[in-house]
Amino acid sequence: MILDDTFFIAAPMAGVRTRQGWVRSQQQTSFSFEPGERCLMENHFAVRLAAAVRRCGNPVLVGLDPRAESLPAGLLSGDDRRQPDRVAAAYGEFCRGVIDVVAPLVAVVKPQAAFFEQQGPAGMAVLAEVIAYARSQGLLVILDGKRNDIGSTATAYAHAYLGPAEQHGWGADALTVSPYLGEDSLEPFVEVASENGGGIFVLVKTSNPGGGRFQDLVADGRTLHAHVGELVEQLALQTLPGEETGCAYGSVGAVAGATYPEQLEEIRQSLPHCWLLVPGFGAQGGGAADVAGAFDASGLGAIVNSSRGIIFAHDRDPYREQFGDARWQEAVEAATHEMISQLRDLTPAGQLAE
Amino acid sequence: MILDDTFFIAAPMAGVRTRQGWVRSQQQTSFSFEPGERCLMENHFAVRLAAAVRRCGNPVLVGLDPRAESLPAGLLSGDDRRQPDRVAAAYGEFCRGVIDVVAPLVAVVKPQAAFFEQQGPAGMAVLAEVIAYARSQGLLVILDGKRNDIGSTATAYAHAYLGPAEQHGWGADALTVSPYLGEDSLEPFVEVASENGGGIFVLVKTSNPGGGRFQDLVADGRTLHAHVGELVEQLALQTLPGEETGCAYGSVGAVAGATYPEQLEEIRQSLPHCWLLVPGFGAQGGGAADVAGAFDASGLGAIVNSSRGIIFAHDRDPYREQFGDARWQEAVEAATHEMISQLRDLTPAGQLAE
Repeated sequence: MILDDTFFIAAPMAGVRTRQGWVRSQQQTSFSFEPGERCLMENHFAVRLAAAVRRCGNPVLVGLDPRAESLPAGLLSGDDRRQPDRVAAAYGEFCRGVIDVVAPLVAVVKPQAAFFEQQGPAGMAVLAEVIAYARSQGLLVILDGKRNDIGSTATAYAHAYLGPAEQHGWGADALTVSPYLGEDSLEPFVEVASENGGGIFVLVKTSNPGGGRFQDLVADGRTLHAHVGELVEQLALQTLPGEETGCAYGSVGAVAGATYPEQLEEIRQSLPHCWLLVPGFGAQGGGAADVAGAFDASGLGAIVNSSRGIIFAHDRDPYREQFGDARWQEAVEAATHEMISQLRDLTPAGQLAE
Repeated sequence: MILDDTFFIAAPMAGVRTRQGWVRSQQQTSFSFEPGERCLMENHFAVRLAAAVRRCGNPVLVGLDPRAESLPAGLLSGDDRRQPDRVAAAYGEFCRGVIDVVAPLVAVVKPQAAFFEQQGPAGMAVLAEVIAYARSQGLLVILDGKRNDIGSTATAYAHAYLGPAEQHGWGADALTVSPYLGEDSLEPFVEVASENGGGIFVLVKTSNPGGGRFQDLVADGRTLHAHVGELVEQLALQTLPGEETGCAYGSVGAVAGATYPEQLEEIRQSLPHCWLLVPGFGAQGGGAADVAGAFDASGLGAIVNSSRGIIFAHDRDPYREQFGDARWQEAVEAATHEMISQLRDLTPAGQLAE
């Protein structure tokens, strides 16, 4: 694994893992951001993400999608499943258990907001605890909320999830954002993210079967997702870190699904300054070879998400028999190592571990 | 005002206002919904909405967009503005104050989720209280959350906001939803909404200046918003109430902005089975004449939102001088009456009051 010290100093928010152990620094350097102006700062999301991925030597992103019906036995009794407070507490315990296992192995986790919201205000309080715990363990946190709105409402969402946790509640490193409302719905997110050293990932080409209904419509000779991608690339260019960081990516990335490998490769080519968040691996059908085109030549530029395939590995072959419910954390660990190996063997991300 | 008793029995969730006063019934009739099957039930969102709008004799939708910096003096001190718990509590007090004024006048309120989320978990708890309070006062509640995701994640969002409040937390009557992810992102919302007598409003043509960047792209001879509208109309047709209700609308509606009057009229024609939620009135520049095309011949089929123009009327002419901060609720009342009058004078909704 390449241990590049120039990257260690670039992760002040998440805490830094070094050969000597943990160095935590929760203080956040604030800076002013003018759209169009390059951000010359060490607290830049893309730089922090590159550093974390290099440090771990793999691009695996573990999705935290807790579901009451899938939790390992013992975490939640049948009677408690209809009580939001109890379910939320079990989600907290479960997610902390996953984080304990994956924090030494991967760079990033992605809580899915919907499952926490399903448990009401108690679920949202636990979401905040899970984000804080993940960050305390050195992980970057991308909140999957697919938020969007216009003007000052978009700013409110951005502050909620990307502003300082003590002031707004959640304090994630990045947020997924939906593009339907156009550029004036994205710019407030970009601005608040940049002010706080955070990032956003805009939905471009999603992994679901029905995603193409609108995303693949062709207007002016290009698909809708290509039009959206063009805007996302423009925003990424406006948020590049300084050249001295050696990082070619802005703090605005794109979501592009593993289930459409050819389009994923096209998106990599068309959006050279965007980190790609790639869902659809594993349970949704995408394999390691399918995501190979998402990476740049050095093995950076993409993070690949698996949720159910990792966090509920205790309930799938071959881990069900090997570990079962009682040793579910060992199943999580084995499934994480399996995904890391697959991506190392079949994608340019293998270079990260050399 | 037409007082049609056949509509009174159709609003079991929201509580019913009759000549004799309030009859509250929070019990909710659950029913099974098969996509494609017409729902023959009295607890149908479109029927309840029509009943409520007819009862009030106007289509005004009051947006609850609390903002710390705009609250009337006395509700929140400067020192408290950076404390999410204090801000959230002030939002609760303010929204209850607005609800007390508007509940006798209008049918529907629309809390904007972003402003509550900006105050963290405390804000989300207050959002639940505000929704419950509005419903206890006989109002229908459309939560403006613009949520979207795929498959079981979309189902989780739908349960969160449209499921029974005691089980999931919020319990709104309807939710705004974003369409970028395609039909398999909308269907779970439709299913859960229908099971609970709720509805959704899908973004079709939004009111913001940048909305056209993607929504107005032309593919296969039609704009993207027309493509989205076509799907929304299909979903509305699948969720029509029984013919005996006399209601021509499904439980799936569309968001179409007041700032594009011509397109609004086209959308009314193309989506004959969709209630339209029309933002952009007032502060965003749309006037009563601009929204005339959103209504059907009987004056139903559209609800028109004003947020800042009503809730912060104490801070705009002519109400600033007349009422000021101290009498802010009187300003809310006067601004609501003003909007009701404008819509009665200049749109088909005037018939509702005859």
